[in-house]
Amino acid sequence: MGFLAREALENDVDTDALIARMVEHIRWNGDSLELLDQRILPRTVAWVSCNNAAEAADAIASMVIRGAPAIGITAAYGLALEARLGGDLSVAKDVLLASRPTAVNLRWALERLMALQPSEFADEAVAIHAEDIALNQRMGAHGADLLKPGSKVYSHCNAGALATGGWGTSVGVIRSAHALGRIEKVWVGETRPYLQGARLTAWELKDEDIPCALVCDSVAASLMASGQVDAVLVGCDRVAANGDAANKIGTLSLAVLARHYGVKFYVAMPTSTLDQRCASGADIPIEERDAAEVRGHAGVQWAADVDVYNPGFDVTPAALISAWITEDGLWTPP
Amino acid sequence: MGFLAREALENDVDTDALIARMVEHIRWNGDSLELLDQRILPRTVAWVSCNNAAEAADAIASMVIRGAPAIGITAAYGLALEARLGGDLSVAKDVLLASRPTAVNLRWALERLMALQPSEFADEAVAIHAEDIALNQRMGAHGADLLKPGSKVYSHCNAGALATGGWGTSVGVIRSAHALGRIEKVWVGETRPYLQGARLTAWELKDEDIPCALVCDSVAASLMASGQVDAVLVGCDRVAANGDAANKIGTLSLAVLARHYGVKFYVAMPTSTLDQRCASGADIPIEERDAAEVRGHAGVQWAADVDVYNPGFDVTPAALISAWITEDGLWTPP
Repeated sequence: MGFLAREALENDVDTDALIARMVEHIRWNGDSLELLDQRILPRTVAWVSCNNAAEAADAIASMVIRGAPAIGITAAYGLALEARLGGDLSVAKDVLLASRPTAVNLRWALERLMALQPSEFADEAVAIHAEDIALNQRMGAHGADLLKPGSKVYSHCNAGALATGGWGTSVGVIRSAHALGRIEKVWVGETRPYLQGARLTAWELKDEDIPCALVCDSVAASLMASGQVDAVLVGCDRVAANGDAANKIGTLSLAVLARHYGVKFYVAMPTSTLDQRCASGADIPIEERDAAEVRGHAGVQWAADVDVYNPGFDVTPAALISAWITEDGLWTPP
Repeated sequence: MGFLAREALENDVDTDALIARMVEHIRWNGDSLELLDQRILPRTVAWVSCNNAAEAADAIASMVIRGAPAIGITAAYGLALEARLGGDLSVAKDVLLASRPTAVNLRWALERLMALQPSEFADEAVAIHAEDIALNQRMGAHGADLLKPGSKVYSHCNAGALATGGWGTSVGVIRSAHALGRIEKVWVGETRPYLQGARLTAWELKDEDIPCALVCDSVAASLMASGQVDAVLVGCDRVAANGDAANKIGTLSLAVLARHYGVKFYVAMPTSTLDQRCASGADIPIEERDAAEVRGHAGVQWAADVDVYNPGFDVTPAALISAWITEDGLWTPP
């Protein structure tokens, strides 16, 4: 993946050595696609091989890969594989679209390819991948400008390399700041119930020797109370026109705590997540997820069969957000 | 257990039917002691039988039973068993004392028995047990006075029947308020990392048909933001002279959120937990626990072998506490 990122660099971070070390999870070798299996990370590091569009669609549907940008890139490579095989591209596109119906990037990436000749699909998929990394790196550079040397930051969920083409959004800001020598410590919130922090972010950071410690989500308050957090960094799923940000459940709690303790609260926000159709956070629907996620984890149940309330996201009001970091610089609601 | 509690009642809650249904976890039948095994609750409901002091000490040391009041009661029954067998009571006392060295109630209960004739031990152990339930029920009645009909409350950790002789401290307040028809809903915070809320509190409440729903700890903010919490109820491990309260990790986070959203924050506090030697919360030592608790649960590890910070407790400043509920009524720091 190194060559993609290096060609696309548009920021002032010296990333040559970093890119060589960055977590790599989407490998394209021209006639097959290898995906790091995120379902079993970090205990097992295994790759899933995709040789055609149907196999790429299976990988998306079965959660081998997750994160909207990463899904879009995988679908583009899947369609490129099908073009190389001379398969029916219209059928292949529909199969890929059906693999994760709500992922907006998926449709966008496939339509970008379908506007070209099949012989151009592979190069276009590579370009989409490279552009996503470059976007994240621009965002990372803007975010790093907000952090002073010696910063202790708190991270929630996984808006990292694994959720994107590489580098990541909020974790990308940490990567960029670390490259500039500004990160003293990253507190990684485990992010119940699905544990993306414990399973994915902690693994990404450890893999790159970025100093970090895993904590239960409920530890954030005492860390802030004792002055051990300079900034909270989170990603976002959707931002309303007024700046209210929907993100993984637990984000709002961190924003309220940050305000109480005078800690900065930053949202890493690709401009594509700004939804002008939503005037405020009240217009953003909140998905309620399966009770089994809360009663246990990975097939192990520890709670009784009690009722569960398991919202997947919460909405942080704009008033609690110190800055919105985009690939184009800082954004502020009108 | 019903007869113990009924004799000891000193509050105005009609508890006859409730006591018959209350979670029972310490059964004394005169020549043996049966303990509900809390290590495997709620998935398996099994009892551990103790026939002498050594077996009672084993049950305490191996966490069959936990919670300072419950440990003191178990030790008293253990010594009573030994007296009935004509064993060496001085040796037996030392064995029980060593089973959980930091539990203050343990020494207190054993010394109360040792001041009497061995033939009186059994009755004294029964009395200690009954007094603890009665104390919790007085506390429950005082706490229930703070709640209006239709209250939605948020519970953290397990300061319930299972941690005491019965009824519980903060969960006891919920029991008393429910008996008065004042509880519409209990949100049960799962309480990472050891999951006492998910495993124990949710099971206690479900067992008594008190309406509840289990949530991840990070959901509290969005519940409060949407007006679904009238009061937070927590227990405490130690209260400093100025009212600062040490309790299970995550308590401070709830207190800050409650303040932000104008929600009441109540601490259920047996007067025995007031430590006049600590001027403020800064004097209360915070235990750091095993990293394995955060990296996974019950032998299943899901995180990488990353560094972990796992404080067992946090300290909530008195300024964030709406009221301290004791067995003698509401307490306020001088």
